[in-house]
Amino acid sequence: MTDADDLAEQVLAGDLRLYELEDHADHDTAAAARRKLLESETDATLDTVGQYAFPAEDAETAIENMVGTIQVPLGVAGPVAVSGGSADGEYYLPLATTEGALLASVNRGCSVIDSAGGADARVTKQGMTRAPVFRVQGITEAEEVVNWVRDNRDALAETAESTTNHGELLDVTTYVVGDSVFLRFVYDTKDAMGMNMATIATREAASLVEEETPASLVALSGNLCSDKKPAAINAVEGRGRSVTADVKIPREVVEERLHTTPEAIEEANTRKNLVGSAKAGALGFNAHAANVVAAAFLATGQDAAQVVEGSNAITTVEAREDELYASVSIASLEVGTVGGGTKLPTQAEALDVLGLRGGGDPAGSNADALAEIITVGALAGELSLLAALASRHLSSAHEELGR
Amino acid sequence: MTDADDLAEQVLAGDLRLYELEDHADHDTAAAARRKLLESETDATLDTVGQYAFPAEDAETAIENMVGTIQVPLGVAGPVAVSGGSADGEYYLPLATTEGALLASVNRGCSVIDSAGGADARVTKQGMTRAPVFRVQGITEAEEVVNWVRDNRDALAETAESTTNHGELLDVTTYVVGDSVFLRFVYDTKDAMGMNMATIATREAASLVEEETPASLVALSGNLCSDKKPAAINAVEGRGRSVTADVKIPREVVEERLHTTPEAIEEANTRKNLVGSAKAGALGFNAHAANVVAAAFLATGQDAAQVVEGSNAITTVEAREDELYASVSIASLEVGTVGGGTKLPTQAEALDVLGLRGGGDPAGSNADALAEIITVGALAGELSLLAALASRHLSSAHEELGR
Amino acid sequence: MTDADDLAEQVLAGDLRLYELEDHADHDTAAAARRKLLESETDATLDTVGQYAFPAEDAETAIENMVGTIQVPLGVAGPVAVSGGSADGEYYLPLATTEGALLASVNRGCSVIDSAGGADARVTKQGMTRAPVFRVQGITEAEEVVNWVRDNRDALAETAESTTNHGELLDVTTYVVGDSVFLRFVYDTKDAMGMNMATIATREAASLVEEETPASLVALSGNLCSDKKPAAINAVEGRGRSVTADVKIPREVVEERLHTTPEAIEEANTRKNLVGSAKAGALGFNAHAANVVAAAFLATGQDAAQVVEGSNAITTVEAREDELYASVSIASLEVGTVGGGTKLPTQAEALDVLGLRGGGDPAGSNADALAEIITVGALAGELSLLAALASRHLSSAHEELGR
Amino acid sequence: MTDADDLAEQVLAGDLRLYELEDHADHDTAAAARRKLLESETDATLDTVGQYAFPAEDAETAIENMVGTIQVPLGVAGPVAVSGGSADGEYYLPLATTEGALLASVNRGCSVIDSAGGADARVTKQGMTRAPVFRVQGITEAEEVVNWVRDNRDALAETAESTTNHGELLDVTTYVVGDSVFLRFVYDTKDAMGMNMATIATREAASLVEEETPASLVALSGNLCSDKKPAAINAVEGRGRSVTADVKIPREVVEERLHTTPEAIEEANTRKNLVGSAKAGALGFNAHAANVVAAAFLATGQDAAQVVEGSNAITTVEAREDELYASVSIASLEVGTVGGGTKLPTQAEALDVLGLRGGGDPAGSNADALAEIITVGALAGELSLLAALASRHLSSAHEELGR
Repeated sequence: MTDADDLAEQVLAGDLRLYELEDHADHDTAAAARRKLLESETDATLDTVGQYAFPAEDAETAIENMVGTIQVPLGVAGPVAVSGGSADGEYYLPLATTEGALLASVNRGCSVIDSAGGADARVTKQGMTRAPVFRVQGITEAEEVVNWVRDNRDALAETAESTTNHGELLDVTTYVVGDSVFLRFVYDTKDAMGMNMATIATREAASLVEEETPASLVALSGNLCSDKKPAAINAVEGRGRSVTADVKIPREVVEERLHTTPEAIEEANTRKNLVGSAKAGALGFNAHAANVVAAAFLATGQDAAQVVEGSNAITTVEAREDELYASVSIASLEVGTVGGGTKLPTQAEALDVLGLRGGGDPAGSNADALAEIITVGALAGELSLLAALASRHLSSAHEELGR
Repeated sequence: MTDADDLAEQVLAGDLRLYELEDHADHDTAAAARRKLLESETDATLDTVGQYAFPAEDAETAIENMVGTIQVPLGVAGPVAVSGGSADGEYYLPLATTEGALLASVNRGCSVIDSAGGADARVTKQGMTRAPVFRVQGITEAEEVVNWVRDNRDALAETAESTTNHGELLDVTTYVVGDSVFLRFVYDTKDAMGMNMATIATREAASLVEEETPASLVALSGNLCSDKKPAAINAVEGRGRSVTADVKIPREVVEERLHTTPEAIEEANTRKNLVGSAKAGALGFNAHAANVVAAAFLATGQDAAQVVEGSNAITTVEAREDELYASVSIASLEVGTVGGGTKLPTQAEALDVLGLRGGGDPAGSNADALAEIITVGALAGELSLLAALASRHLSSAHEELGR
Repeated sequence: MTDADDLAEQVLAGDLRLYELEDHADHDTAAAARRKLLESETDATLDTVGQYAFPAEDAETAIENMVGTIQVPLGVAGPVAVSGGSADGEYYLPLATTEGALLASVNRGCSVIDSAGGADARVTKQGMTRAPVFRVQGITEAEEVVNWVRDNRDALAETAESTTNHGELLDVTTYVVGDSVFLRFVYDTKDAMGMNMATIATREAASLVEEETPASLVALSGNLCSDKKPAAINAVEGRGRSVTADVKIPREVVEERLHTTPEAIEEANTRKNLVGSAKAGALGFNAHAANVVAAAFLATGQDAAQVVEGSNAITTVEAREDELYASVSIASLEVGTVGGGTKLPTQAEALDVLGLRGGGDPAGSNADALAEIITVGALAGELSLLAALASRHLSSAHEELGR
Repeated sequence: MTDADDLAEQVLAGDLRLYELEDHADHDTAAAARRKLLESETDATLDTVGQYAFPAEDAETAIENMVGTIQVPLGVAGPVAVSGGSADGEYYLPLATTEGALLASVNRGCSVIDSAGGADARVTKQGMTRAPVFRVQGITEAEEVVNWVRDNRDALAETAESTTNHGELLDVTTYVVGDSVFLRFVYDTKDAMGMNMATIATREAASLVEEETPASLVALSGNLCSDKKPAAINAVEGRGRSVTADVKIPREVVEERLHTTPEAIEEANTRKNLVGSAKAGALGFNAHAANVVAAAFLATGQDAAQVVEGSNAITTVEAREDELYASVSIASLEVGTVGGGTKLPTQAEALDVLGLRGGGDPAGSNADALAEIITVGALAGELSLLAALASRHLSSAHEELGR
């Protein structure tokens, strides 16, 4: 083993590549060497990046070419009462963000929801997808493949599931475009977000399709999955969890705590979130659900790029005689409590704040609960922002609290 | 001033609220008190969350109710040569992610681009938007407002720009839906991402509209902005920066370094990114641009929820006799090098790695350069993943390097 | 019975309403009376409108307040060989249009396809949909409804099918947004386009849902059907028939007959139909499929407003060493050969040209064949227009032949 | 000149082609010959198709290979009072359809609107578009083209307008995707729908771009126009006319005439047209606007395939204390009163019913008025259907009146 300065010099001399350092030193030394290198090649000093709170080795399945960590401020909103299919109780919601005023806004929403007796939440659909694309000779062969898939669900399930202890094939849908055949595999991946599980299982199933039909695999993902792209297929059919949270807030709570009326909030929601989003050609009919999804994802070790799908949310508001009804329905919220970034130390601690680190009992219930709580957080954010818009102090709030 | 235990007890006793702690102690003590409180109310221990690398006070404009930080592994890809309108040189791209294999994949792409002589990049459109929605009595009044706006651009610009030292009103577009009138204000916000600047300026301009026309403001954002929602208006018209990066890679480089052919990569791109995304009803025609956008955003202190807009990207690939042409065009990449999360210590260090911390000369050039470099990173990620799909080792790569 | 002049006067005098005339005279006289009335109230003379070729009574289920007919020029393209799942042989395609050059363009495409040995075509999915929306108290009730529907498919099928001799319930999918529950019923409606059958069957099934669950029907169509609106759900999941037609054209045929190359056509298709439509935020990735769909719909008595769904088409083109591969896949082509406008005399004659008037044997095969032939027509139109664009004479063709 | 039988035989013998008949006989004889041919080749008899009400020569710019006409039942709805920017007075709306119950439904809506004092309507934006796509070497050349276009608006306008007596270039917008540059030209085409005018003008402008920049034209339409495809760019930015119609209906009129309440209609609209369409990934947020657009287009000689764009409509409904407010906003209604199908005899008569045949004074006002009246018709259709849904008799109405 050698020290960081030596390693950095060897890279500069061209004797080592940047990604080979872990072969020649422990992970912390390798990261230190990369900082040295960057400091010598640029004007940066990487002091705070290098002050991370856990052994670099803990991140070895999360990143390559590690140089340190980025630290994102973590706060908590709540507590807020959630009555879900899996979540049940009062929760503090951990949120990591750099957007001033966001946490305060969500916190205000949580407080109002709590005053109203808490929110209900349910996962109404779930399944992680992977959709390979195959090449065929033309539409007659495409029909052949479609028919084979329809007639061989069991064989596909057996093959796909042979790669996983927990995953379960729920469905396979076929889509044909010319000489391309797309098969959208849907899996129950329990407490895992499940992209990796779905990819591995689908690779195996795709091999079977290639063996038994004239189809030839072009790409293991053919974008009908759809991962990390804004896509109607996810907004319509769901991916990960489809979750709804709702609340009924007494009129006097709206007036006293949000300084506006149910009618004004309904009007803001209708003109902005429904009509405005309609005119914008949007797949998201909400005020800022992605803010809460992003902050909760960062806090709990979810995949930050899947905020894209998490923004497929519809907010509804109805002013009633005595109360305000409000709901948020996120079509494709992709979360897990095992694997991926959830294993990192700070992220795992945030999951502990929710009592949801690791696998649930029954399997899948922790991820369900996480989805429900995040959606309640999004509901809190919607209520607070809509109320702020309705009472016209959006930009003032930013001026006082924000950037 | 009092210590963290005392504060935590006062909150538990109901004598203080969670967000009031900074009024009674310094920021680090307040954060410590919140950790105490969470530890007593849940089963969490918040050791690593509490080990952050800078005074909590540094984060006071970034978050409320702070308890510590989430640490996201930071790595670097590159160096990669970028010939942009503003970017110019060899860059190491800082990426923060928890998705194993991502950084290695981008790094491979950067290396291939570099071997091909580097990538070109250009910002082809720019402007941050804010679109309030107004209520009118009906379509005859709506027409009146539309005409007034058309005839009073200068007054609107003067009013909007009175709120800002740097911002400049570029355009106002009107949209009418029944008795709702939407005005989409577009600003040049220079090196700032600019949402806050645009909001404040628009609030002032909206007041003028209210004074001079029958329109009544319902919401300062009417979702035609569109912020943090997947929306065609951004994919079509752009928001923040519209950026393209492209590269021409000699055939032998493709074969030797990516272990496939230009034709196979083109086919994967056509069937997956064009036809597959078309069939999915997508606004993103790419493989995983959001991965790179998210990781670069986290590293450099951008708004994580704006990954949503950053995923509005189209990847094109063309196999030519001697080379592969590949491009990524991101329609709405919202970045800044001043303000917001860019001021945080670890994020500022990451910007220093790029030489882009703070305002550019001329104003706006640092944000332009950042946009160009991120887009080259996205291009690297696209090339690497498409090549992996073409040569069928997507899931193997995950198995070896990933979760 | 009274004559047309009398009737017209009675309407003018306020003694009769415009829609009551058939109660007091035969249909032709009623129509004549309306023409009189319009001629007296406006500057119009309705000579040609009144010269229709069949008894007005034949149109009584097609229109109310009839005054005559609009005559749309009818031409034929072809013959073109179609090898479909149901269509089989050489067909002349009847097209009714007012757009000069369209028919010539489709005819040219048919001729080229024929020279290449004809086109293949297949229906790869079929089902007419109706999706009522129900109100519930909130998400907990919504979950209850979703579960009930999942557990009571057979009862729903029995109830729905009790209203129809031919229809068959294929599927029911549930979608939840806040306190709204949408049930998308999918039916095999055989040779009927099936909207009416689906509506009646769904009304009955919706009654059962109301009886057995807390759900309350708000609208028998909740727009997840989606009828006559551009909607991703149709482009992705299909409605009516999902059909693909494709053809392989020898390179020399492309060069001699279309005066361009496979490569030029592929390039035009990629930049226009794939990349251009992607940038446009489109659900239609084709050149002008709607032109052929509209003209065939008018000729054969289909619902003209369903051209909207018929435009959800993706065209693919691939230049190969010896040939050009081209395909058109229409996701949601809604056609029938029985009922609706197919019964009208001129339209029925057009169906006779195809040999497809009335119910097929087996049931559904006539509508399948019609869908396949229309899609081949769309393919012909795509080839011809793409070739024209590739060889740059689009507007010249219009100048010579057109308006 | 020869007779129809001879001509048919010559075609059968291969001595003449189907499209050459007009070179050897008058148009009516040529059409008769084609009917003979079809009757001999198929089982069809084309009696009614052959009984058309005007000389075939009148259709020579509307169709090729003419065999006769398709006759679509024409009815009228109304009268309805329209107070528009151009329309002003009581109008009977001619509608051609084969969908039973449609006309009765629109008629009922017209009657209710009339009882409420009529509808307001305004064209809030207008412009016909054509968007060629050019190939460049890469993003650096693309930037060059974008800059040239920005700096040469006047030259482009002069060139484009040199091809037309009436058209005026309003705008050119640039879009870049990799090595493709799209220029969206927008024209004021006055009373013409304008596609042809826009195409010819753009062809000339595109030549100038090719001469002055490195861009090379690939297709005169690059699908950012977007013509006859469902596309967000039209729904957002408009094409043809953007029109809104609205009405305020006293509560008692709603109750007495529509047998329901403002609140029930608002609820149906919100859950179906706003939330339902949102969930469907739609560009159309309405009940059945396309039905009215299609029927009015057929009646007045518009392009039937442009019903696709005409379906980009948003319906809003608000229940107020004393009244119901309802509006329909169609983003991209493409209509003309000169050229194309408007010249055909039956269609011209229908335009005469509206008093809108030919060019308006000022130019463009007839097309504006037509757009306004059609939108009021769509509003009538929306009101009637929403009321029917709200009072649950949608399918009953079809059973009684329909197919």
